[in-house]
Amino acid sequence: MILNREDAMTETSIIYGKNSIIEALEKSEREFNKIYISNNSRADVKIEQIKELAHKRGVIFQFVAKEKLNALAPEANHQGVVAQIAPIKYVDLDDFIEANKGSNSSVVILDGVEDSHNVGAIIRTCVCAGIKGIILPSRRGVLINSTVEKTSAGATNHISIIKTNSLVNAIQRLKENDYWVIASDHHAEQNHYEVDYTDMNFALIMGAEHSGISKSLLKMADFRVKIPMLTNFNSLNVSNAAAIILFEYVTQKSKKSKK
Amino acid sequence: MILNREDAMTETSIIYGKNSIIEALEKSEREFNKIYISNNSRADVKIEQIKELAHKRGVIFQFVAKEKLNALAPEANHQGVVAQIAPIKYVDLDDFIEANKGSNSSVVILDGVEDSHNVGAIIRTCVCAGIKGIILPSRRGVLINSTVEKTSAGATNHISIIKTNSLVNAIQRLKENDYWVIASDHHAEQNHYEVDYTDMNFALIMGAEHSGISKSLLKMADFRVKIPMLTNFNSLNVSNAAAIILFEYVTQKSKKSKK
Repeated sequence: MILNREDAMTETSIIYGKNSIIEALEKSEREFNKIYISNNSRADVKIEQIKELAHKRGVIFQFVAKEKLNALAPEANHQGVVAQIAPIKYVDLDDFIEANKGSNSSVVILDGVEDSHNVGAIIRTCVCAGIKGIILPSRRGVLINSTVEKTSAGATNHISIIKTNSLVNAIQRLKENDYWVIASDHHAEQNHYEVDYTDMNFALIMGAEHSGISKSLLKMADFRVKIPMLTNFNSLNVSNAAAIILFEYVTQKSKKSKK
Repeated sequence: MILNREDAMTETSIIYGKNSIIEALEKSEREFNKIYISNNSRADVKIEQIKELAHKRGVIFQFVAKEKLNALAPEANHQGVVAQIAPIKYVDLDDFIEANKGSNSSVVILDGVEDSHNVGAIIRTCVCAGIKGIILPSRRGVLINSTVEKTSAGATNHISIIKTNSLVNAIQRLKENDYWVIASDHHAEQNHYEVDYTDMNFALIMGAEHSGISKSLLKMADFRVKIPMLTNFNSLNVSNAAAIILFEYVTQKSKKSKK
């Protein structure tokens, strides 16, 4: 969204929902332009918390009519509060690789995932699983938007988000830097739990909701793994599939650290 | 939705979306009242498939203006096709227990999960994981609705869905019938992967998005398990948390069957 010249920032993103805004005020270094609060929400505890946090950070808040909020965040369940905030800063892949050298690193690559709710849920799960970065293609699938930020429950502020024009080139760079590439593919022979994720850098590719992973990327994978099913209803949602594989990694790591 | 007397069924549910309707035509025994197809969708391959399947099952379909579809499935991404279908038949808990005696059985209990997308995604994952039933409280949280059916990708047709006035009584009945009760609780001491799920009947309780599992149910649990996190961002989405625990069970079962 481009604002007019009178505004402090030349470009802002919209985030909405009480928890998202509290999370961003508490945890994110992103600059706020302004927080808009519905005229009717004054008595709410979380709104009070938002006002307090905004005050601490020197962020302006303004009480407005609900219609203004609806215009800023159309079709969104904004819970009476909307903020204009500096957009997510995408991280350069080489900088990411450099910053995560030395200890085992991990990244999730979304090959054209189209549903903002899925992208948000995957980012949320990645942060819980200690994944260091997420790579999104610039031209296919979803980039970070208000719905992604809301669904991620603020997790977008806790992970490096990398945007790339070419997933093929990005994967090539990761391979050159000792990342093992794992593709989630339901035609695979190997089960996802048969890979030892704990002693390597890995990049996990998750495919689009309907078409899966592109052939060109599938060819680059060092491992192709499937999630075994106990019925023929072979149809996990992509965010649940990502959660299952990533928490297999967490389980392995957690078991190892107890030995 | 109550229809007028001239309609064949006295009560119908609405399902929408091409895949959901194909799935229901192919796999479900639920009676169809009518399928409404948008005037503009005639050339589509999946619409052709729907027409063919409807013809085989003797289901009437009718081409209508998009406005009619919007009225039948408001605010839904119906993809140009909406069906009136007999509502999901809820299963009686005692019948469920009886029908699943003899081999190991498993059921997921949703204690007030409020988001239809989460309920749909959990049912989808349950079917993939071979879970036999799902228990929903009649008065808290979400029951089966159009959004649940759509998000489940048709999985609602492949699992016993039980509705109960009292989760406490339902859990008591399960315990009397040799089910072990497992509660997902992030305050728990035990890790979810430390339970052996393969050699018992189990009932897994998942709590509501914000409030978690009610104290009265938590007290009834034989095991309380947590999903360990690799960061302090302790905030998995409930459908992803369910997927992680249920596929730990699938992994254990899959490893055991290979021995």
